[in-house]
Amino acid sequence: MNPEPLAPGATIGILGGGQLGRMIALAAARLGFRTHVFCPDPASPAFDVASRRTDAAYEDEAALAAFAADVDVATYEFENVPAGTAAFLAARRTLRPDAAALRTTQDRLEEKRFLDRIGVPVAPWAPVDGPGDVDAAIAAAGLPGVLKTRRFGYDGKGQAKVADRAGFVAAVGALGGRDLVYEGFVDFVMEISAIVVRGANGAFGVYDVGENLHENHILRRTTVPARVPDTTRGTAAALAIRIAERLGYVGVMGVEMFVVDDPTGQRGAQRLLVNELAPRVHNSGHWTEDGAVTGQFENHVRAIAGWPLGSTQRLGEVTMTNLIGAEADDWLSIVADPGARLHLYGKAEARPGRKMGHVNRVVPPAG
Amino acid sequence: MNPEPLAPGATIGILGGGQLGRMIALAAARLGFRTHVFCPDPASPAFDVASRRTDAAYEDEAALAAFAADVDVATYEFENVPAGTAAFLAARRTLRPDAAALRTTQDRLEEKRFLDRIGVPVAPWAPVDGPGDVDAAIAAAGLPGVLKTRRFGYDGKGQAKVADRAGFVAAVGALGGRDLVYEGFVDFVMEISAIVVRGANGAFGVYDVGENLHENHILRRTTVPARVPDTTRGTAAALAIRIAERLGYVGVMGVEMFVVDDPTGQRGAQRLLVNELAPRVHNSGHWTEDGAVTGQFENHVRAIAGWPLGSTQRLGEVTMTNLIGAEADDWLSIVADPGARLHLYGKAEARPGRKMGHVNRVVPPAG
Repeated sequence: MNPEPLAPGATIGILGGGQLGRMIALAAARLGFRTHVFCPDPASPAFDVASRRTDAAYEDEAALAAFAADVDVATYEFENVPAGTAAFLAARRTLRPDAAALRTTQDRLEEKRFLDRIGVPVAPWAPVDGPGDVDAAIAAAGLPGVLKTRRFGYDGKGQAKVADRAGFVAAVGALGGRDLVYEGFVDFVMEISAIVVRGANGAFGVYDVGENLHENHILRRTTVPARVPDTTRGTAAALAIRIAERLGYVGVMGVEMFVVDDPTGQRGAQRLLVNELAPRVHNSGHWTEDGAVTGQFENHVRAIAGWPLGSTQRLGEVTMTNLIGAEADDWLSIVADPGARLHLYGKAEARPGRKMGHVNRVVPPAG
Repeated sequence: MNPEPLAPGATIGILGGGQLGRMIALAAARLGFRTHVFCPDPASPAFDVASRRTDAAYEDEAALAAFAADVDVATYEFENVPAGTAAFLAARRTLRPDAAALRTTQDRLEEKRFLDRIGVPVAPWAPVDGPGDVDAAIAAAGLPGVLKTRRFGYDGKGQAKVADRAGFVAAVGALGGRDLVYEGFVDFVMEISAIVVRGANGAFGVYDVGENLHENHILRRTTVPARVPDTTRGTAAALAIRIAERLGYVGVMGVEMFVVDDPTGQRGAQRLLVNELAPRVHNSGHWTEDGAVTGQFENHVRAIAGWPLGSTQRLGEVTMTNLIGAEADDWLSIVADPGARLHLYGKAEARPGRKMGHVNRVVPPAG
């Protein structure tokens, strides 16, 4: 489908109306595309910048059919698009990334099986579908660890730390008793992200790897480049490319990885364990908007439109800091700082833990 | 009015729905503002990225009243806002730049009188309100020259070249017989633009002066920095600042100037003659979007919102090339060039002479 690149003036359909959809829409507009945002939340920040808006449930097939008829290609800003929604749309319009990418990445168990299958290292893990699986899981992945729901977890939701057998059994109950994945604890040096983009013609781009700092399970800051050796950087890029390639992926994908010291390797050697795939533009790629020649949002639009990809070249040393909850109230002091590039998402209510915006700071290389 | 800076989430009202309004709206969205675009053309490209849209005539007072009630500050993308519209709005909401800036700049005669009054040099000129004024105009400003309507001219429309007395008289008739301004021909070396921004608190920013190349009265390319001596650069910035200061201006203004060799001055000395003021973001400032720390659209939004201004620092050598009419059909080869930053305006129809988009190319300083 869509062997020809989409001409400017075509309509990009976006499922999901949060800040990611909003920034995709802004990038699409700059390239001359129209956008149509579909989201069940009438207060969606992406509605404010979309050419057309559908405020309907993801299960509303009449609304989905009208959306599909209106758009030239559809994409999404979140991995929890219901499978039925994706299938319904994909039967009518090109969906990029495709339904298979969604299927693999919206289920932690499917994702780990896929990564195992293509030889990408992950932390030790085991499926858990009841208290009877606890001993086998501990045997496979050790203690302590984290028990997670297979689906619909984000920002620390749908997961519980497990320190011992009794706590494990309790966590199984607390998380619903089944459809869980247990991951053994990894003593990592840092978490990094590789943001990869794959074009419709199979061309690749990878941004320089960033170093992520989390607080309360929410990304606080990404610093680029990550403080890792070049070999680690290269391995991270190669892993991200392999994943996108084997998924037949089209668009931007975020790949979170743990950096682990490798005592069996050479001095300074590190191993990488892939922690999570996000089949979409990613918070840890927001630095690219000011810190790279082409931002992740534009490259996502280019990819799904079948356009040539833009350069992922970095423009300096970059930090991206999320503004969470009331932190966004500091907007006036941030914009008074000439080195700060403020991005706000237009959300009305600054609830605790809610991502309200981010700030990029780019230090160009010394001339 | 509006002594406090506008908080994110406030609504910026924009009169005019062309590419300038569209790019103002995109910049406003990035800072967390909502936008409301008012334009009589239902196919306005700015409607596609606006939070709210009013498709009504500028004389529709009910629509204007609703617009004024909905927005927190109003601005415009074009200098030909009818005086009645500006007055109606300004009585209800802060209008930035204000109605006085519009009054001065939308009438070539008022503009020249103002520039004379504040000691800013312009080409020799004379008002013409009938054939009886022709001889005095020739005596004041010489031959050849250009006869222009006082109002509503742009891109070469509403003007006629005049080579001799008979042609002058004919041009007076062709241009309506009255409300005209005659400008003596200036043998200029080049045309340059200074893009200045003045904040609500009186703070200034000036971008590096760009060199403009026109074809068929339409801007073809702006190259930054202009190939002029530093003294000329400094004089241009000082003139732009003086103009904005004396207008009590808030927002971005484009100041077009002729660079003229000065045989009476020192070796290499140049004089500047201000050609035209544009009380708005300006085509010759489009390079700032990729070639400066803060683009002109964001700085316009910051200014009218009462925010601190962003840095106008240039990021390299920049060329901005307009895509006019069918030139925009080359979008695929442009986006395949890794050095090109494409901006398309989402206009459906590529009529000859119509500005469809532009391309910025930034060459960073050698490291």
